[in-house]
Amino acid sequence: MKLHHIGIAVGSLAAARPIFERLLGKPADSEEVVEEQKVRVAMFEVGESRLELLEATCEDSPLARSLSKRGQGVHHIAVAVEDLGGTLRRLESAGVRLIDREPRRGAGNELVAFLHPAGTAGVLIELVEEK
Amino acid sequence: MKLHHIGIAVGSLAAARPIFERLLGKPADSEEVVEEQKVRVAMFEVGESRLELLEATCEDSPLARSLSKRGQGVHHIAVAVEDLGGTLRRLESAGVRLIDREPRRGAGNELVAFLHPAGTAGVLIELVEEK
Repeated sequence: MKLHHIGIAVGSLAAARPIFERLLGKPADSEEVVEEQKVRVAMFEVGESRLELLEATCEDSPLARSLSKRGQGVHHIAVAVEDLGGTLRRLESAGVRLIDREPRRGAGNELVAFLHPAGTAGVLIELVEEK
Repeated sequence: MKLHHIGIAVGSLAAARPIFERLLGKPADSEEVVEEQKVRVAMFEVGESRLELLEATCEDSPLARSLSKRGQGVHHIAVAVEDLGGTLRRLESAGVRLIDREPRRGAGNELVAFLHPAGTAGVLIELVEEK
């Protein structure tokens, strides 16, 4: 198990990316658009984890709604687990509220699932199956 | 460089700790009061990083003010750096807004410093000197 990434919602990638480049002392490792989620992502590898800066690509992006409601800041944290399907069944039977009851394909074709933040102290948590 | 920890503000450690124990599939690695910050902390090791659940120990705790203003959720993220004093000077000369211009002693006697969230896309970032 490890922290897979921290997703940070930003109003402008052009503004935020150089700030995190200064902070981390290196350029972003990649920048790409994830069409299905309507976000542009700048990714920084930090040890075994990543920081991901997320910018909405259009006004009906779910991230745009989050930005207008809660502003910039940490949007979600992602934890890598070995057996995502088994983990979801274990959590559901323990009464943890799930957004995704089954693994689905996320960015980079990874298997992912989200837990409901109402059940996890207001933190939106993504589980990612470790490869 | 690595992600040192994610600090999560919770209203009740008694409620949140078992949720994260279920999520992570193991008991918390420690629970302790950090008097100077007026918080009680339950800590989970996750790979090379940690999740820290933070509960205010009294109403005038800075964390209590954050909870009443912004509610539960991710409070700050901490990045481990090799040379904290040098990193702060480099960031300040690059125009990054600092809360602490010099390293100070944090929990566990580690050298730490906070950056101002207004300069980092709304994210409160702590730097921790790697031992």
